[in-house]
Amino acid sequence: MRRFLNVIPVTDAVATVIRISPAKVTETVPLESATGRILAVPVSADSDVPGFDRSVVDGYAVRAADTAGAGDAAPALLMNKGRISMGRQEPGSAISPSECAYIPTGGVLPAGADAVVMVEYTDEAADTILIKKSVSHGENVLLHDEDFKSGEIVFPAGRRITPQDAGVLAACGCAKVPVARKPVVGIISTGNELVTVNTVPGPGQVRDANAPMLAAYLAEYGCVPRMYGIVRDEQEAFEAVLTKAVPECDVVILSGGSSKDDRDMTAGTIATMGEVLVHGIAIAPGKPTIIGRISGKPVFGLPGHPASAFVVLIAIVCPLLDRMLGIDKTLQRTVRATLAINIPSQRGREEYVRVRLENGVATPLFGKSGLLNTLVRSSGLVRIPAGAEGLEQGSGVEVILW
Amino acid sequence: MRRFLNVIPVTDAVATVIRISPAKVTETVPLESATGRILAVPVSADSDVPGFDRSVVDGYAVRAADTAGAGDAAPALLMNKGRISMGRQEPGSAISPSECAYIPTGGVLPAGADAVVMVEYTDEAADTILIKKSVSHGENVLLHDEDFKSGEIVFPAGRRITPQDAGVLAACGCAKVPVARKPVVGIISTGNELVTVNTVPGPGQVRDANAPMLAAYLAEYGCVPRMYGIVRDEQEAFEAVLTKAVPECDVVILSGGSSKDDRDMTAGTIATMGEVLVHGIAIAPGKPTIIGRISGKPVFGLPGHPASAFVVLIAIVCPLLDRMLGIDKTLQRTVRATLAINIPSQRGREEYVRVRLENGVATPLFGKSGLLNTLVRSSGLVRIPAGAEGLEQGSGVEVILW
Repeated sequence: MRRFLNVIPVTDAVATVIRISPAKVTETVPLESATGRILAVPVSADSDVPGFDRSVVDGYAVRAADTAGAGDAAPALLMNKGRISMGRQEPGSAISPSECAYIPTGGVLPAGADAVVMVEYTDEAADTILIKKSVSHGENVLLHDEDFKSGEIVFPAGRRITPQDAGVLAACGCAKVPVARKPVVGIISTGNELVTVNTVPGPGQVRDANAPMLAAYLAEYGCVPRMYGIVRDEQEAFEAVLTKAVPECDVVILSGGSSKDDRDMTAGTIATMGEVLVHGIAIAPGKPTIIGRISGKPVFGLPGHPASAFVVLIAIVCPLLDRMLGIDKTLQRTVRATLAINIPSQRGREEYVRVRLENGVATPLFGKSGLLNTLVRSSGLVRIPAGAEGLEQGSGVEVILW
Repeated sequence: MRRFLNVIPVTDAVATVIRISPAKVTETVPLESATGRILAVPVSADSDVPGFDRSVVDGYAVRAADTAGAGDAAPALLMNKGRISMGRQEPGSAISPSECAYIPTGGVLPAGADAVVMVEYTDEAADTILIKKSVSHGENVLLHDEDFKSGEIVFPAGRRITPQDAGVLAACGCAKVPVARKPVVGIISTGNELVTVNTVPGPGQVRDANAPMLAAYLAEYGCVPRMYGIVRDEQEAFEAVLTKAVPECDVVILSGGSSKDDRDMTAGTIATMGEVLVHGIAIAPGKPTIIGRISGKPVFGLPGHPASAFVVLIAIVCPLLDRMLGIDKTLQRTVRATLAINIPSQRGREEYVRVRLENGVATPLFGKSGLLNTLVRSSGLVRIPAGAEGLEQGSGVEVILW
């Protein structure tokens, strides 16, 4: 094995994962479990919404022309035709000139009417209603197709469905929602030093933090994490777990192997069972990342340090997931912030610096690699492009939020 | 029933919901399902993390003093004692002056050593290792308690567990995580005009958008929504559904009743079965909100317009949920933005204006109440305090993101 990695730029690594990405698969889920999923095809309204001309206030449905010039001093006097009920169109409810009808919010505007006067501006005197404010044509009325027109595209493919979207999908009759199937991502931890959370670490042992972290992140990102536990640093063990995981998953992630020997074993096993496409990326942290393929499935070797694994997950693995989910723009949330101090960087590699965000100011948190505490004390990451020698104090940066 | 509502300030309404809030209940969940939940008690590390002095690089464990003055031209020559294996503490691995041992990343620093020289700065010559760079005491070493000390509080109560937190909880031995139990929130839609998403609306009918929207929002917020379907605007129907829902839920939300008649029926039913505490809040949209209590359980009457219901959910209901979940600071994400245009507002009521956010600029979306499309075209809400007459173009605002 070589002593030095043959590192490639992040853009090339991303191009590689996009090239080997499995195709998006569409499935249909009930509306009540669609929130958070990614729409697989555009969705259109099955009918006009709201579907009929609706009052948006409690008041009297009128012909606007009948209210011209009406005011407190000189109310228009209209004949009360009665009340409109909610939820039905009453055939006999049409109003003629000089007539009006009480209409509740959401009620169907009767034929003949073209506006609604709020009840606050009216008074009753037996069968006569005093209208003390003029209204214009269409006032206080929501037109039958004012929200969405029948056939109109309401949401494009690739949109992450929000709670409000769920309401709109309901209004548009989309009870079964076509979404991208969740990628199944296998997670394998490697390392003789690793024990599970349930074990008290013996001398030289540490608990596996990567697998729970990666699984939780992938679940939030819209994947199904599938756990394969901790595997010892032995080629037969690697081959056995990959032989099981590859057919069961869409993507497999090995994490661990912070040392060169382990990385070489990971790369060697992937090469034996399939092919290694990338071994070394010009990214910090995360340089010794491996991208390969076994039986047509993408297989990643992520660094063992949790912070490094996390950065590679965001910068390299998520573009693959985005492709499988059919989204153009990553799901990561970002905010603009001002940099508190200079951050020097090494040209030629893309750097990701953990920052703490307070009142719009991003302060870098430096610390030894391998520390977990900087990961949880920080709010997110600032990316320094490969071409830059650093970022200046006071400059505007985009923070990728955890 | 009164014609006008007796509106109270938002702060008073929030004080009321906090006063009637059920207490936080703690439960324990496995680590793998803890992400997104709220920690109920502080969590501390059960042991030092990493637990032993660890190398953070591949290299040679040395006594720093032995490398003083070492460089390319004048390497320090140290005797190679062999290799440290991962995952165990080797009793015979102690090094003496002028000795060194190969150590992989993550390996246990042998007794006698106090620093590690990266392999890149070394050469082998039989049993002798040429050290071509001096290191200082502690260099490239993570101390046994440098990440977390045994007994140290790692996370406070009230923290929403992130994926990285899941990794840290694993490292700290927290396999069973004490979290706030998810509040069970009953959702009842009211209105004779409402039909479900599976029904083609007849004349005067509209599909219920509120229940799917509220349920999805509450699920994302960390609650268990419980659906009670659509109830006709009849007091017996209201009483029947509340009789069923109240014992099954921690909180009950009725939504609908955009017209005064419906609101009066909702308030009347709650008053009959329990007590109405608030009927009318100085908030826009959302004025006709009802807060009551039946058998000690909070019951809300939200406005029927989806946008109004959403605003009241965020401004009034979430503070109750926050209390039940044990969080001090709301879970809503906010970002700072610059206002594109003036927004006038009516003094004396708190207004929530939907805005579209682009490149840090927030543009208000005005539209008739009752429209769903402004809800999905907007990015979030800007709050105008009750004391303000409006917000100036160019001023900095906080946007509550959807």
